[in-house]
Amino acid sequence: MYYIAVYDVGEKRVGKMLKIFRRYLHHIQNSVFEGEMTPASYQKLKYEAAKLCNDETDSVIFFELNGKYMNKEIIGTEKRPASNFI
Amino acid sequence: MYYIAVYDVGEKRVGKMLKIFRRYLHHIQNSVFEGEMTPASYQKLKYEAAKLCNDETDSVIFFELNGKYMNKEIIGTEKRPASNFI
Repeated sequence: MYYIAVYDVGEKRVGKMLKIFRRYLHHIQNSVFEGEMTPASYQKLKYEAAKLCNDETDSVIFFELNGKYMNKEIIGTEKRPASNFI
Repeated sequence: MYYIAVYDVGEKRVGKMLKIFRRYLHHIQNSVFEGEMTPASYQKLKYEAAKLCNDETDSVIFFELNGKYMNKEIIGTEKRPASNFI
């Protein structure tokens, strides 16, 4: 399956969340990722993300697509400020 | 067409960008939106976003999907902290 994933987590957890997501998906913007995952990888990523997540303040969203999206358009820069945190 | 859109813009422009996006799409997380748009609405939204965007620091991504996604899973909270800015 193809996924788009975004997260919005507290500053203290941003770096760790980024490291987790990078092991599974392509990093395309600050907190936005995309890529193909097997059902097993998807379960593992969800498990790791849920363990780190603060359920009251943080949010992670996974969109499971029926095949890859048709098109992606980017306005502005493609840089990923979060990369600087590592 | 169905769209998922995310932005990462400077703090000064977050409120204005939110107002623009809310006129076209559903707000589902801090800077994440989804919904159906006609080609004309999509062009208008891109035009408004591009006008506000700082091309060197800001980034807006539109994913154009072939129909709606299969599934959406949310870990953590569904709250949208950016709503407080309005």
